[in-house]
Amino acid sequence: MSKKPYHLWYWPNIQGRGEFVRLALEAAGVPYRDRAREDGVEALLADMDKRPGIRPFAPPYVDDGSLTLGQVAHILAWLGERHGFGAGDLDRDLELIMLQLTVSDVAAEVHNVHHPLAGSLYYDDQKHAAADAARHFREERIPKFLGYFEDALSANSGPFVLGAKWSHVDTSLFQLVEGLRYMFPQRMAEVEGDYPSLVACHDAVAELDGIKAYCASDRRIAFNTDGIFRHYPELENT
Amino acid sequence: MSKKPYHLWYWPNIQGRGEFVRLALEAAGVPYRDRAREDGVEALLADMDKRPGIRPFAPPYVDDGSLTLGQVAHILAWLGERHGFGAGDLDRDLELIMLQLTVSDVAAEVHNVHHPLAGSLYYDDQKHAAADAARHFREERIPKFLGYFEDALSANSGPFVLGAKWSHVDTSLFQLVEGLRYMFPQRMAEVEGDYPSLVACHDAVAELDGIKAYCASDRRIAFNTDGIFRHYPELENT
Repeated sequence: MSKKPYHLWYWPNIQGRGEFVRLALEAAGVPYRDRAREDGVEALLADMDKRPGIRPFAPPYVDDGSLTLGQVAHILAWLGERHGFGAGDLDRDLELIMLQLTVSDVAAEVHNVHHPLAGSLYYDDQKHAAADAARHFREERIPKFLGYFEDALSANSGPFVLGAKWSHVDTSLFQLVEGLRYMFPQRMAEVEGDYPSLVACHDAVAELDGIKAYCASDRRIAFNTDGIFRHYPELENT
Repeated sequence: MSKKPYHLWYWPNIQGRGEFVRLALEAAGVPYRDRAREDGVEALLADMDKRPGIRPFAPPYVDDGSLTLGQVAHILAWLGERHGFGAGDLDRDLELIMLQLTVSDVAAEVHNVHHPLAGSLYYDDQKHAAADAARHFREERIPKFLGYFEDALSANSGPFVLGAKWSHVDTSLFQLVEGLRYMFPQRMAEVEGDYPSLVACHDAVAELDGIKAYCASDRRIAFNTDGIFRHYPELENT
């Protein structure tokens, strides 16, 4: 294991998918450099360009000095095992990774709400389709996903998926709740009461020392409408 | 490791996401039971209903008698390590999983082409949006994804990602090429020449004994318009 800080490469002006990585590292107190926030987006683009062969498809990715891995759930499984924020037991870790991959699926569907036709088009050029996508996401997918994680939290006695010990899945569920509250505050206010274990998990993550310090710092970028979770008031009542 | 056959649970009438799992197991000669093909879709729905707590979000999932895991890339990483169709070296396996997760991302985008607004709506109820999504996918995403895997194949001397040894990524790239050829035959005919290593990988997988036998059997379901890869002629020239 490298003693040098990890290099995290991600878009510097958004929480986005990178935030799931940042939160776990911050909660665990693992040193990392957020390279594009230090050196700018041009440094990120240049870094991506210079990687041949087997490489990350897109940010975020993490470089430990000898290996570079992309894909949020994969990064978290990799670093979680090294730094003790996995389960420390193979079968339980495999279950955590399954849950974490479903968090990634939620993030992809969330992105699809404001970009149903193409990631390369602006939201304003696909607003009509986004209104339809938002309605289905709010009504069908939010209860389905939140219910799934509520059930996962019932496997142990809480507040975390593993019970008393937090893992990368919990910091990600914290972000999922935060992001959905920002994106669809009305819908979340309506349904949150149905998912008490999920809300309790969110609140317990918020109380972790590393998360408290991070959220109070300027390292935590505010939600905005360039990220994955976006608040467009017109998508709340479509 | 269980000596009993794995139980694969997936929709019985489509290749879909389950096919990535079937192909690797068939290539490796690992015994499995395709439970919903044996017992019908009702058995699959009943099996999903009876699983509490931490469980797969959706099919496909694999049950080895003591652990049940969902998420295609995760299933393949798990079984690949047990049955020798991973790399057998940690760093290389981590790279394979990263590639495999990107195959899953392609599958999600492919599904979004014909279901841009909602998975719960029929294609016919979102055809107009699908025409736009198809154009962007054909023009922008196919070259981007295929170029990414072409580059990955350049890391070794072929025909497979690891070189002479096939892995779960190669059987998945075979399916990706097969699926895109079915879905967008005109576009694939136009661009395939730009990805000679990917086509060579596809062809080498097709020659594996297990794959030849599988594709000649009735276990290989034909592509159809209920699966992930769907051929709608009207989406070829939008």
